[in-house]
Amino acid sequence: MSVTPQIGIIMGSQSDWPTMKHAADTLEALGVPFEARIVSAHRTPKRLVDYAESAKARGLKAIIAGAGGAAHLPGMTASMTPLPVFGVPIESKTLKGQDSLLSIVQMPAGIPVGTLAIGRAGAINAALLSAAVLALNDPAIAAALDDFRARQTAAVAEEPVDDVQ
Amino acid sequence: MSVTPQIGIIMGSQSDWPTMKHAADTLEALGVPFEARIVSAHRTPKRLVDYAESAKARGLKAIIAGAGGAAHLPGMTASMTPLPVFGVPIESKTLKGQDSLLSIVQMPAGIPVGTLAIGRAGAINAALLSAAVLALNDPAIAAALDDFRARQTAAVAEEPVDDVQ
Amino acid sequence: MSVTPQIGIIMGSQSDWPTMKHAADTLEALGVPFEARIVSAHRTPKRLVDYAESAKARGLKAIIAGAGGAAHLPGMTASMTPLPVFGVPIESKTLKGQDSLLSIVQMPAGIPVGTLAIGRAGAINAALLSAAVLALNDPAIAAALDDFRARQTAAVAEEPVDDVQ
Amino acid sequence: MSVTPQIGIIMGSQSDWPTMKHAADTLEALGVPFEARIVSAHRTPKRLVDYAESAKARGLKAIIAGAGGAAHLPGMTASMTPLPVFGVPIESKTLKGQDSLLSIVQMPAGIPVGTLAIGRAGAINAALLSAAVLALNDPAIAAALDDFRARQTAAVAEEPVDDVQ
Amino acid sequence: MSVTPQIGIIMGSQSDWPTMKHAADTLEALGVPFEARIVSAHRTPKRLVDYAESAKARGLKAIIAGAGGAAHLPGMTASMTPLPVFGVPIESKTLKGQDSLLSIVQMPAGIPVGTLAIGRAGAINAALLSAAVLALNDPAIAAALDDFRARQTAAVAEEPVDDVQ
Amino acid sequence: MSVTPQIGIIMGSQSDWPTMKHAADTLEALGVPFEARIVSAHRTPKRLVDYAESAKARGLKAIIAGAGGAAHLPGMTASMTPLPVFGVPIESKTLKGQDSLLSIVQMPAGIPVGTLAIGRAGAINAALLSAAVLALNDPAIAAALDDFRARQTAAVAEEPVDDVQ
Amino acid sequence: MSVTPQIGIIMGSQSDWPTMKHAADTLEALGVPFEARIVSAHRTPKRLVDYAESAKARGLKAIIAGAGGAAHLPGMTASMTPLPVFGVPIESKTLKGQDSLLSIVQMPAGIPVGTLAIGRAGAINAALLSAAVLALNDPAIAAALDDFRARQTAAVAEEPVDDVQ
Amino acid sequence: MSVTPQIGIIMGSQSDWPTMKHAADTLEALGVPFEARIVSAHRTPKRLVDYAESAKARGLKAIIAGAGGAAHLPGMTASMTPLPVFGVPIESKTLKGQDSLLSIVQMPAGIPVGTLAIGRAGAINAALLSAAVLALNDPAIAAALDDFRARQTAAVAEEPVDDVQ
Repeated sequence: MSVTPQIGIIMGSQSDWPTMKHAADTLEALGVPFEARIVSAHRTPKRLVDYAESAKARGLKAIIAGAGGAAHLPGMTASMTPLPVFGVPIESKTLKGQDSLLSIVQMPAGIPVGTLAIGRAGAINAALLSAAVLALNDPAIAAALDDFRARQTAAVAEEPVDDVQ
Repeated sequence: MSVTPQIGIIMGSQSDWPTMKHAADTLEALGVPFEARIVSAHRTPKRLVDYAESAKARGLKAIIAGAGGAAHLPGMTASMTPLPVFGVPIESKTLKGQDSLLSIVQMPAGIPVGTLAIGRAGAINAALLSAAVLALNDPAIAAALDDFRARQTAAVAEEPVDDVQ
Repeated sequence: MSVTPQIGIIMGSQSDWPTMKHAADTLEALGVPFEARIVSAHRTPKRLVDYAESAKARGLKAIIAGAGGAAHLPGMTASMTPLPVFGVPIESKTLKGQDSLLSIVQMPAGIPVGTLAIGRAGAINAALLSAAVLALNDPAIAAALDDFRARQTAAVAEEPVDDVQ
Repeated sequence: MSVTPQIGIIMGSQSDWPTMKHAADTLEALGVPFEARIVSAHRTPKRLVDYAESAKARGLKAIIAGAGGAAHLPGMTASMTPLPVFGVPIESKTLKGQDSLLSIVQMPAGIPVGTLAIGRAGAINAALLSAAVLALNDPAIAAALDDFRARQTAAVAEEPVDDVQ
Repeated sequence: MSVTPQIGIIMGSQSDWPTMKHAADTLEALGVPFEARIVSAHRTPKRLVDYAESAKARGLKAIIAGAGGAAHLPGMTASMTPLPVFGVPIESKTLKGQDSLLSIVQMPAGIPVGTLAIGRAGAINAALLSAAVLALNDPAIAAALDDFRARQTAAVAEEPVDDVQ
Repeated sequence: MSVTPQIGIIMGSQSDWPTMKHAADTLEALGVPFEARIVSAHRTPKRLVDYAESAKARGLKAIIAGAGGAAHLPGMTASMTPLPVFGVPIESKTLKGQDSLLSIVQMPAGIPVGTLAIGRAGAINAALLSAAVLALNDPAIAAALDDFRARQTAAVAEEPVDDVQ
Repeated sequence: MSVTPQIGIIMGSQSDWPTMKHAADTLEALGVPFEARIVSAHRTPKRLVDYAESAKARGLKAIIAGAGGAAHLPGMTASMTPLPVFGVPIESKTLKGQDSLLSIVQMPAGIPVGTLAIGRAGAINAALLSAAVLALNDPAIAAALDDFRARQTAAVAEEPVDDVQ
Repeated sequence: MSVTPQIGIIMGSQSDWPTMKHAADTLEALGVPFEARIVSAHRTPKRLVDYAESAKARGLKAIIAGAGGAAHLPGMTASMTPLPVFGVPIESKTLKGQDSLLSIVQMPAGIPVGTLAIGRAGAINAALLSAAVLALNDPAIAAALDDFRARQTAAVAEEPVDDVQ
């Protein structure tokens, strides 16, 4: 990944990585250069300010932010960058991500966070949505996305089978 | 608006317009050309297919879809276009948009919908997020967004006052 | 099953089959001919259109549709067929089917989906309800249902016993 | 209504009628003969038993049952008739029909209730679903339903307008 | 238990017994004669009518009814007996007893069900509450309850210890 | 009310009276002597201790406790009296009594509170349930309850009428 | 208020003031010097950093932060000051403060926010809790709090009266 | 711990200790003297009165109270002491602490409980918040807290790594 990352994946904690890695894997599969960083809104607020304020100048085009519980990372990032920010609610232990979802999606008018589904599906879809944004001006990524979609459609079997777990 | 619309605002019903009009007004304020259409996933499924499948070719760059209750419009649109789709959960009568929110945001891996807050704030933010996507390659929109942000920040008073409703 | 299927069981993903198989098993026990297909509203939207639009002409009398999360399959099917559609909310990982339930049951006026309970009970009951519809004009199925009910009632013991798991 | 009713609309209380009347109006518009009765599972349990047990013999083909709160009417009716039963959760005062919905839809395996949306939309859709069941063997009702759908689709305007409430 | 039972414990299914057995054990410990029966509101509605209508004449003083999901047993029992009815929401698989709780507690004005906590604690407390009702006119049960309370209070240690699971 | 009260109605605040008055009115209609007091668990904890500890000796047979929000009154009363305690969740402003309900019903094993529905229905039913407890040993109250039930059943009209609000 | 404020009341928007003013009024009644400021986490992130980082040096002893929806203000403030931070969830339009509550209270281990009830009660209580903190080392405030409590207890009437709204 | 405890940790049951021990461990790490006691609001109401009423005189500066389900301990403690009370909602078996949270946080105006997150994070944060209160007048604790924060910030890695569980 010596090329400039176009997408920044950030998360509040190392414990979010098993979820957010699905975003990274999806971007990699699509050939989208990215970086992955731990930025805790609560434990490293200065790092958050630095990351958000420098993101555009460093060449990023969109930011994927995953967080759980009182999930402030996506919204605070969005408040300090003009880039599109996509939020991934991490499944929390007791409330199963319902707290994460509401903390991310219910942003006030003025500062948007495009929010995806709770957990793994949300991480994958944040990557796909980021890629769709890049694809507007990048034919290679557009082609990769089209190919991803076509293969995804083709992979749906006609009939269910019993011996699949 | 004789210029080609870059953003398509669609909604499931005329009754969603008082909410979605905030998206239109915001795009207009930012100078982003758009169109607004009623496309009901349930009552006009063919219109939905036509709209979604032709959107990219017609020059749209992103779609904002608002829907309430069992809100299928954003997700079904996303399943038939490679464009970024942003969903606005309309406040429903009995469940206050909790059904709309879950029906929009909990998309399965593979087909993303970037979901905004329930109601008016979500409509405004869907417009801002769409504009942020366009701004990546459109300096005029980028400047308009920067200006919007700066004025928004400047408009926050230092101290609360009693005589405001 | 060389006879024409009267009930179509569709589901969004192979992973829904362990739940939806209970619908199939129940129909089989009642002697109702059926077919089971994977039709993803999001990953195979064209297949969905084809399936829904051709269902009546192919001789189906009702459709049982199972889906989870932002569960659009039952409602979208209902929007494209005049046949009765019964929805089964699949238990989702994080929200335990609460999202599936609301996405299926909260359909707007005009396009109904008769919704059953979340998970296995809902799949069984979708089969029983479909059979009850067929039984209105099929004495054999009516008799099979009566027999199912009678055996079900007879199987309820008078007193609970400890050594049952 | 001197013709034999084919659909029985029952509700737990006179106070449910403003909601359930939408089911009656819809059936009337479709030319489906019906009856409407107040049957309280809790205040008139004997009437409930009589109604449910005699429904099929009296010529009914399906029952639409509306109830709110701890809504036992649809499920108890279903336990005492082989006819298809469709449940309409009435919007309750404090919990907005969330209690009604769960009390109706979460039936155990063995006794199905096809559940519609909370409130007015659910009442209309229960009528449409009942009519779809009858339409399987009644070309006139099938034609009325097709006409209803066609007019419904045609009534969706292309563009939203401001001067609609 | 050759003495006449004073409390009837009923439940919708054998699968509720592991929970409801705690009610039985508690009554036994207090020396309250009881009976335990499976009475399914949905699968054995006639048995329910018989049980509820004969309960007072058979000498029962109160009924404890446990049920899960669309839990109709407590409310329907209450509709057919003048005896106090206490409801125990059984923990359901997907919704964890939230459906059971609302289906039991949200009874309409006119037919009360005294509802206890979800699951084991509710079963124990239904027994204690039934015993408290009997204790109003039975000094032996009153003494047994006082003793239960005193031992319960005495059993609370002063300080927590680590080596307890 | 010179006769000794048999039921104590307590509530956390004067603002609960419009709800709890329905319990008083119901008891009065049934001829059950009662008292009504404001006892705030949080603002008058000593009064709560006095009330709960003296209730049995003063001749009360059961206590109806209404409270809203973090509703501690029913449970704390139950912890200090052997009498049956019935709880009425008052509809709270923001959460509509969902907080009140959970705070009252989810008591731990050992200290039961028989919980009724949120709001007015719950208040009426708490009175009916208390009366049912007294009726076990008071033929006059038993007769009054039977009469109440009979009139309630008789008051249910056969058919709904439009001109009722 | 020429004396140094000891408590800082901040809120995300002028629209929060009708709620937060109750905190201000309560502090004033207790003789606690305070300041009230609008600090939007999302619209004025720099002001937030400045406020939180300077709070202790400016002599504040605790901060009361009110916010609604995706309520990030309390938690972000807590991440940048060693002072105790108390959060007040503002009642939001659609979700009635459930989103605000979860966004404030579900903070990860390491950065605490002491959270009060949704709305007006929470604002009053945040003031009382802040005063209780100050009272640990300020006899005048301690006395004011004792007096507040005594008057509050004395104000609870013995019996409810009908003619209170 | 021969020094006078400054913080009292109480909990409703021995079963709460695995959660509340995190509060104890955190205080110990910060050098804050504390005591830990089991005080059940429901099973030992007299012990609760004694503990709460004597807490200030015994030298405590704040009380951390953990409880689950209908969690009355924090609020009842707060009603009988002028000390700051911080509540920790224990994760309950069926409702995952949602009942505990609402029972603790939704206190009426007049008696505040500063509420932390559900479970372990809440226990740790209750300790940190209590320490922050003490730190206002105790430079050693202030220094320990600053050190804790600094180490916490330093412990956040820059990039996520795969081989961490």
